[in-house]
Amino acid sequence: MIDPGGTLGIVGGGQLGRMIALAAARYGLATHVYSPEPDSPAFAVACRHTRKAYDDEAALIAFADAVDVITYEFENVPRRTAEILRQRKPLRPGVEALATTQDRFAEKSFVAGLGIATAPFRAVGGEADLADALAEIGRPAVLKTRRFGYDGKGQVMIRPETAAADAWRTLRGAPCILEGFVAFEREVSVVAARTAEGGFAAYDLCDNSHRDHILDVTRVPAGVSSDTEREAIAITERIAEALDYVGVLAVEMFVVRQGGEEAVVVNEIAPRVHNSGHWTIEGAVTSQFEQHVRAVCGWPLGSPERLGRIEMQNLIGHAADGWRELLARRDTHVHLYGKAEARPGRKMGHLTRVRPERG
Amino acid sequence: MIDPGGTLGIVGGGQLGRMIALAAARYGLATHVYSPEPDSPAFAVACRHTRKAYDDEAALIAFADAVDVITYEFENVPRRTAEILRQRKPLRPGVEALATTQDRFAEKSFVAGLGIATAPFRAVGGEADLADALAEIGRPAVLKTRRFGYDGKGQVMIRPETAAADAWRTLRGAPCILEGFVAFEREVSVVAARTAEGGFAAYDLCDNSHRDHILDVTRVPAGVSSDTEREAIAITERIAEALDYVGVLAVEMFVVRQGGEEAVVVNEIAPRVHNSGHWTIEGAVTSQFEQHVRAVCGWPLGSPERLGRIEMQNLIGHAADGWRELLARRDTHVHLYGKAEARPGRKMGHLTRVRPERG
Repeated sequence: MIDPGGTLGIVGGGQLGRMIALAAARYGLATHVYSPEPDSPAFAVACRHTRKAYDDEAALIAFADAVDVITYEFENVPRRTAEILRQRKPLRPGVEALATTQDRFAEKSFVAGLGIATAPFRAVGGEADLADALAEIGRPAVLKTRRFGYDGKGQVMIRPETAAADAWRTLRGAPCILEGFVAFEREVSVVAARTAEGGFAAYDLCDNSHRDHILDVTRVPAGVSSDTEREAIAITERIAEALDYVGVLAVEMFVVRQGGEEAVVVNEIAPRVHNSGHWTIEGAVTSQFEQHVRAVCGWPLGSPERLGRIEMQNLIGHAADGWRELLARRDTHVHLYGKAEARPGRKMGHLTRVRPERG
Repeated sequence: MIDPGGTLGIVGGGQLGRMIALAAARYGLATHVYSPEPDSPAFAVACRHTRKAYDDEAALIAFADAVDVITYEFENVPRRTAEILRQRKPLRPGVEALATTQDRFAEKSFVAGLGIATAPFRAVGGEADLADALAEIGRPAVLKTRRFGYDGKGQVMIRPETAAADAWRTLRGAPCILEGFVAFEREVSVVAARTAEGGFAAYDLCDNSHRDHILDVTRVPAGVSSDTEREAIAITERIAEALDYVGVLAVEMFVVRQGGEEAVVVNEIAPRVHNSGHWTIEGAVTSQFEQHVRAVCGWPLGSPERLGRIEMQNLIGHAADGWRELLARRDTHVHLYGKAEARPGRKMGHLTRVRPERG
């Protein structure tokens, strides 16, 4: 499909695009990053970049003409953007994955339609809908905008004492989904890759801790039963197959206890490389970024084998200011994304420790 | 000295510059590559590049003004180029390291002056010198140009039957050095880093096999005695100290047997990251490229700890044509340098395998 020496187009210029570009470079690929943001971290490591709006058709066409295959680093690529691109060059993952994951209601319906457990959910188009949905699902519940939510943005918890009307107004009348609150024991994710021919390779299950709705620490192994881990990976493979997915995806899940047994409930699908997979750069034989490039280019997948016990810690906001002290830690791999300004909640870098397995 | 977000200038645009730029990106540094070659592999991953001749003073000055600290990826940076750059920004390693290693006679004299074993050597300025030198050193011996030799270029073996005049003509009257032939058991290298404050960290000794004078395979551990390994590393530290060296350097040595005992003889110093250290990308906690960036930027060195048994294989010329099959090997890390044309003898990429230590 594409040979080393070819050009990989990347839509989106954040740290995920940057790390995809770095992985592509290792295989001798040229990269071309498309992003409207002037300070896109991925621009600095790409062969070429285009700084244009996502609705600039002429720029999108020129970009597609300049590359051999196109991928993206975020799920909110506008539908029309994706359509323009895929008419000219292979877009991997495809528009199906985007359409399904851009809308929380479509995503939950898709997952439930596969017979996979999710939180109870209902589409909410107005205040009256919300009252009905609350009556059905009960409280606590979480009201989320169907689109454009990430890192806890675009969602509000409805507790027993919350006035539903207030919750509705908080989200400014956007089309929403009401989800029953899941009393989870832990949050986990499966990061996996699928090829166009149906090849599939999953990394070990990740245990994720969040702080202020933003991923804080990922630990692997996740500490669940091997049955639960197998089930989580099997679910991910079913989802990837149903989407005819090509590339790396992540499926976020809750681990719950049902009648004394562990079970998993799917929370969200990310059609892209994922923060909870950053540990694979040093902690696996093949990193998620390399794996994504391999899948998108039509190459054989690499081994997802884990190389030790993992702890990945995000550096959020000013946490990266201590970079010099962090660099002095003998057992810590330091990644900084080259972002100029450390705003609160902004992912500035991450740390990975790979320790020997306990004997 | 330089913070993440600053810009590292790299003189030279080959695969070493490319891998330095990739390592710098991981720490959030911007990079600016200076090279006259239009297809420089490092251009594709650098934030900026300047394609100008090494004697273009205006371009050198503009380059120096645009970066915070400057390093190089090859030892044949012209003296005047280095002088122009270092008057404007810190140049690491310094001109001392360049001057010493650009001239084989200066290099050997420097090493011998430290009381470190080398092959017997003599400067040869003309045919008469050569006769004298051969009488003194004996045959077989190797006649090498003092400058600009690499990968076996600029050298000729003088065997018992070789006509000295022919050897002299082969090298076209360039100033030469005659070196006694060393009957070595193996060729090894020490790759190590030194900071401006005298911090020093060496990787484990590398066993290097060459084919057609070009590095073919590096294996670690090197299989020498621990005394020999300690001695090789101590020699490297003395050389680095004497050069007041900052950055990664490699010292190539022969392992010989003297009266039944292993001993090392220094062959060559490379004032830069080195092909025999490529395995450190996956095989050590900190790669030689990261280590070089750390030293050059004035940051703490990382751990050089090795993560398993190493085999690094260069992909020379058309060896990289089998990339798809190589990518399918589960235990092999594939690196391709993005070079368009696979000429014979050209380094196109490399493979690294990291296997568990024998129990």
